[in-house]
Amino acid sequence: MNIYINPLKTEWEKLLQRPLFSTEEIENKVFPILNEVKTNGDKALIHFAEQFDGVKISHLKVSEQEFIEAENLVSTELKKALEIAKQNIYSFHKNQLLKEEIIETTLGVKCWRKSIGIQKVGLYIPGGTAPLFSTVLMLAIPAKIAGCNEISLCTPPNKEGKIHPAILYAAKIAGITNIYKVGGAQAIGALSFGTETINKVFKIFGPGNQYVTAAKNIVNRFGTAIDMPAGPSEVLVIADESSNPVFVAADLLSQAEHGKDSQVVLLTTNESVAKNVKIEVEKQVKLLPRVDFANTSLSNSKIIVLENIEEIIQVSDLYAPEHLIIATENAREIADKITNSGSVFIGHYTPESAGDYASGTNHTLPTNGFSSAYSGVSVDSFVKKVTFQEISKEGLLNLGPTIEILAENEQLEAHKNAVSVRLRELNNK
Amino acid sequence: MNIYINPLKTEWEKLLQRPLFSTEEIENKVFPILNEVKTNGDKALIHFAEQFDGVKISHLKVSEQEFIEAENLVSTELKKALEIAKQNIYSFHKNQLLKEEIIETTLGVKCWRKSIGIQKVGLYIPGGTAPLFSTVLMLAIPAKIAGCNEISLCTPPNKEGKIHPAILYAAKIAGITNIYKVGGAQAIGALSFGTETINKVFKIFGPGNQYVTAAKNIVNRFGTAIDMPAGPSEVLVIADESSNPVFVAADLLSQAEHGKDSQVVLLTTNESVAKNVKIEVEKQVKLLPRVDFANTSLSNSKIIVLENIEEIIQVSDLYAPEHLIIATENAREIADKITNSGSVFIGHYTPESAGDYASGTNHTLPTNGFSSAYSGVSVDSFVKKVTFQEISKEGLLNLGPTIEILAENEQLEAHKNAVSVRLRELNNK
Repeated sequence: MNIYINPLKTEWEKLLQRPLFSTEEIENKVFPILNEVKTNGDKALIHFAEQFDGVKISHLKVSEQEFIEAENLVSTELKKALEIAKQNIYSFHKNQLLKEEIIETTLGVKCWRKSIGIQKVGLYIPGGTAPLFSTVLMLAIPAKIAGCNEISLCTPPNKEGKIHPAILYAAKIAGITNIYKVGGAQAIGALSFGTETINKVFKIFGPGNQYVTAAKNIVNRFGTAIDMPAGPSEVLVIADESSNPVFVAADLLSQAEHGKDSQVVLLTTNESVAKNVKIEVEKQVKLLPRVDFANTSLSNSKIIVLENIEEIIQVSDLYAPEHLIIATENAREIADKITNSGSVFIGHYTPESAGDYASGTNHTLPTNGFSSAYSGVSVDSFVKKVTFQEISKEGLLNLGPTIEILAENEQLEAHKNAVSVRLRELNNK
Repeated sequence: MNIYINPLKTEWEKLLQRPLFSTEEIENKVFPILNEVKTNGDKALIHFAEQFDGVKISHLKVSEQEFIEAENLVSTELKKALEIAKQNIYSFHKNQLLKEEIIETTLGVKCWRKSIGIQKVGLYIPGGTAPLFSTVLMLAIPAKIAGCNEISLCTPPNKEGKIHPAILYAAKIAGITNIYKVGGAQAIGALSFGTETINKVFKIFGPGNQYVTAAKNIVNRFGTAIDMPAGPSEVLVIADESSNPVFVAADLLSQAEHGKDSQVVLLTTNESVAKNVKIEVEKQVKLLPRVDFANTSLSNSKIIVLENIEEIIQVSDLYAPEHLIIATENAREIADKITNSGSVFIGHYTPESAGDYASGTNHTLPTNGFSSAYSGVSVDSFVKKVTFQEISKEGLLNLGPTIEILAENEQLEAHKNAVSVRLRELNNK
């Protein structure tokens, strides 16, 4: 990690620039996969499982028997931990489903919004070495709270044609039973177009590699909603004299281990804090199993020393981090001034991994600076808020003439007429 | 309008299909415009104003003097109507800015969400014959409620280099003063990249022609958020024996006059209702100034007679209309069963134009079937909901071991370690 001391304000934007990725090449590889799924359905999925996952699949859908087997394979300790995580995620998300009151904007004109679960949603859970069962909970729990009728989950099978038992168990306790052994871009295609076995959905959620991301972006252009645009995971930590360098280094590394493209930034006003954290990072990284990932992402990462806390808040908002850890004395006060972040971790005993797993907040968050305009996943992401209005005769007598004037001035005569025909009838009575 | 009587269930999807538009050709025209704006900034905007709007502009930003002139040109009647619309839109939207409570998910683990206005947003208002001042209110009012710091509005100038006074007046009463005389794809480019005069924004809102839509889709792919994907406007009306054919016909026509690609659908269980509405539509359309638009869109529109109200609800949800008018006896009851719609108008005295202008609900709504997954514009569209968490020492002692188990099972050792270093310190005290 390089240390930058008091960089010029005019240099901030450049210093905070994230590496650019060209998506065109990957999209060109993904298009034919999507087309194949659209044309050949299940057959294409089985073909791609053989090609990409190295396994011959006969049944795409996970069977009841497989759920039972999985349950037997998950340790009691992990089951208990998953149960606690589930409870906390549920507690935090359940209040997000709002019942809003009816507003009578004019006498006789009643308006309201209703949150309605998106009927059909698809969840994607990546495969690979580490089974991301935490993401199963983070997506399935709000989907259930939102009242989505049909929740389909796709995740790639391993070489034995199986799904990791912890993923199946997490899905089960979250109430998800439609699980399909399909990974990669082909899974996104299946969820977007539908196949014989997998129903078409209206919105797709979940992380994935660059092929999955490209596929999500493509199907989004053709009408399937997606949770949010994706990019590499990242954390920004604000530290001061009160910070424990051991904690701060561990937090930076917990992000750096995600992948080679992960982003890690430390902001502080104190040069010796910067140096101590750097030393501690270099010490701790050696002990990690994923030291290669961590070292690569650390080489792109930055420690920036700034003049004062105001500058720190400005730089943090400019970067708009996915995760923001405020490991300072008056952390709550600083948190209140933050504008752009996906999720904020306040104080010395709030590591990012708490939110990644079990504090209750969602870990599917906007990366790549998107937290300036996007929110993380919540129950909101799984509902549409439909507006309703009901106008009584009296209401239309009150509001009608206003609508007529506005429509006339926008030169939309038929809009005006829809009111006029009614007012004429009401006034003739 | 063709009448379809009891079509087979297997035919519904085909019958409801919207016309497909190829966007590629338009995107190819829009790309060079966006590049030109990115490279040459204001100079490009002035050049395109001459090329597309036929006017030489010296100052892109609307001056204080122009606001004053506009105010003098708007009639007292229109001012009063705009004021009423503003009040109703404000009343309905102000409750959407929520203050959510802090949830203590585990003893010592506090989590909450905060709605924070997107700092910089851009609003696009189309030009053309009809000045869409209503859209100014529909976008500016929730943006102000959300607390967006910087709101920029772009709209094309007329041949005299002026903006329609009603647009300027509506902007003024909504509290918007940064208005720029820029239209089309170039306006979207300016808002997305920034120029010398116009600041870059994080999210762009508002309707537009196919060039504007294509430009929004392109900049969205490169990182600027947009309100929602766009398509032609549409209404679906549910009518029964209690409906007044004159009202229903007027409602259908108020949608049909929007443009040649507008979509209009009528569902009923009663064949004579279908016929009476058709006769009435043919009678009323002749009297409209926009008869050409209306006739073209009517030629693509459908009256469908179905077996019963359950089928009607199924077909309506399958179509997922932008606007849904329920002009029936027990309209509220039917409304409660609807899943997919942008905005619902209940009963015989609730025409769509009420919501278009002044009932208080927003008129920027998901078209093209997107109401199955997207909501209309609301205060939500102008905020990010950032999550916060604060864990006390006690909280981490309670929750830490759970996080360690979960991280370990996902093979993310550094995630576990961020908790372990803290627990070690706490347990050693």
